[in-house]
Amino acid sequence: MTQFFHYPYQLQLESGEQLNQIKVAYQQFGNPAANKTIWVCHALSGNAQVNEWWPGLFAKNGLFNTSEYRIICANVLGSCYGTTGPDDSPDPLDFPLITIRDMVEVHELLLNHLKIDKIDILIGASLGGQQALEWAVSRPELIDKLILIATNAAHSPYGKAYNEAQRIALQSDETFGRKGGGKAGLKTARAIAMLSYRSYDNFKIKQEDIDTRLSDYKAASYLAYQGDKFINRFEPHAYYTLTKSMDSHNIGRGRDGNTKALETIKAKALVVGINSDVLFPIEEQQYLAKYIANAEFGLINSAHGHDAFLIEYDQLNNLINEFLFHGFKSYKPTTLKLKTNVN
Amino acid sequence: MTQFFHYPYQLQLESGEQLNQIKVAYQQFGNPAANKTIWVCHALSGNAQVNEWWPGLFAKNGLFNTSEYRIICANVLGSCYGTTGPDDSPDPLDFPLITIRDMVEVHELLLNHLKIDKIDILIGASLGGQQALEWAVSRPELIDKLILIATNAAHSPYGKAYNEAQRIALQSDETFGRKGGGKAGLKTARAIAMLSYRSYDNFKIKQEDIDTRLSDYKAASYLAYQGDKFINRFEPHAYYTLTKSMDSHNIGRGRDGNTKALETIKAKALVVGINSDVLFPIEEQQYLAKYIANAEFGLINSAHGHDAFLIEYDQLNNLINEFLFHGFKSYKPTTLKLKTNVN
Repeated sequence: MTQFFHYPYQLQLESGEQLNQIKVAYQQFGNPAANKTIWVCHALSGNAQVNEWWPGLFAKNGLFNTSEYRIICANVLGSCYGTTGPDDSPDPLDFPLITIRDMVEVHELLLNHLKIDKIDILIGASLGGQQALEWAVSRPELIDKLILIATNAAHSPYGKAYNEAQRIALQSDETFGRKGGGKAGLKTARAIAMLSYRSYDNFKIKQEDIDTRLSDYKAASYLAYQGDKFINRFEPHAYYTLTKSMDSHNIGRGRDGNTKALETIKAKALVVGINSDVLFPIEEQQYLAKYIANAEFGLINSAHGHDAFLIEYDQLNNLINEFLFHGFKSYKPTTLKLKTNVN
Repeated sequence: MTQFFHYPYQLQLESGEQLNQIKVAYQQFGNPAANKTIWVCHALSGNAQVNEWWPGLFAKNGLFNTSEYRIICANVLGSCYGTTGPDDSPDPLDFPLITIRDMVEVHELLLNHLKIDKIDILIGASLGGQQALEWAVSRPELIDKLILIATNAAHSPYGKAYNEAQRIALQSDETFGRKGGGKAGLKTARAIAMLSYRSYDNFKIKQEDIDTRLSDYKAASYLAYQGDKFINRFEPHAYYTLTKSMDSHNIGRGRDGNTKALETIKAKALVVGINSDVLFPIEEQQYLAKYIANAEFGLINSAHGHDAFLIEYDQLNNLINEFLFHGFKSYKPTTLKLKTNVN
């Protein structure tokens, strides 16, 4: 059941702007009386229903024994699943820039509201991993174990270009900016995003045509289907806002750079990469594992690209299980050559 | 100087449709009296001015000694640089599907018009390579040497998805279909294409921000700049048509599959791949080199992705030079493991 936390004061944003009286939609699962807390940060198009979108980990028969943990997931600031976002503004285009640090600030407010003083496991993938990492840097003592999946220290120029192409699509839709507008632009944006979430091999495995037709290929129908599905569940202005948030992610901003920031993390960390991820390539997670003091790198072998974190539950659960209950045993970052000097 | 070939008859297209009285814009360079012919097939957004867009090979001081060769390049059917395309139709959206085979058919008509009965070197990259390959299959005796760069036997599902995302962008522009319309859609399409023509590492090298700003990143300005430049030189309807042409590429259609079709090629072939190409990964060129009887695979090592064929002239020229004048010496396809069974 979705609960709401209303913050009655002014929220100061990193950009210098303010938001008044925000509300935060969140869900609590598992055992509310348990003394151990798992906090889940969701990805760009996610929501607080972590049992629905991450069933391999949080639904019944998922990785975590829900009787042992109190599990919390809050919809991020700027989104469209109950937490304050651009569609709550009289003019959606007036909604301010929300950085990853602003999202974490709001998680922190909710944490205080819920009177939680310790997070046993903080977990997130993609934009969720960016929040988790930011939180681990800003509050080193708060988090015991940190699980970062397919994420990075600062969003890459290629990642920013992917997001910008999607914003160009949104902005070229003349209805963007009006309440209920921007659907056509969002459909294009989703098609672009799917290219970055999947991979050459994923499309080869799943979308190869079996005949020699001249048009109407399976890959095209797939993108159309994904676009139609997405515009029924997400808002164009929130999407625009959250791509900007992702671009703003830079753990080293104002902290003497990425490596210095990462070195301040006190949590024990598992950093998981996916070998076919074109959006967050494994060099980014190897870099995190290298500079977080108490970290190991775990590899998911998959043809499916970035979205493998929502697909390869056996591998992901094995890595997390090993990390939580059997100590560090998987891939060490030093065993894999760093391809580029990601800094 | 651009010349025009007017074909006064009806052209039967592979789709079953017809075009009447097409015109073909082409250029001849080098020595018109030379008895050796180089035919260049251009890529998706290219034109007949091969000395301008491929200077490392065809401009003065390029690879080829222009006094030895007659060099011909024709703008492809469906494009917007003088050859018949959708903007010559009363309704651009009524323009028929143009397959790679239709483009080759038109090259063949021009070849006859120019009374050329032998091509010494046929060369093309990307969509240009698709035409060159198709021509080498449809007319095995015509071509002596074949140079295929960053191309494939059949367009991949991932490649089709990239093209479809761009067509979704074009079609979501309400002005698309009207004369002069579709510019906003084309700008989005170009941004998407740039993601596939470049690479993670290329963006890292060229578009990394040097400060810790919260927005207005270099990668975003780069895409905006590329989009603005592109809409001033290309037509949205031609772009739509040519992405469909690329999708239609399938050397094995009606020929018992790709491998059988490739085995009929009689030309000596150099197949060049770029190690960072995400749109036409090297497995595709290794596959070509494996099944063309008299072929070798040459590798360009580059961080820049698919567009490296327009950047890495030293490497490309070395490979071509070796192939033309010193026999087969570079990478053998068998020395590189085929990652997937591309068929």
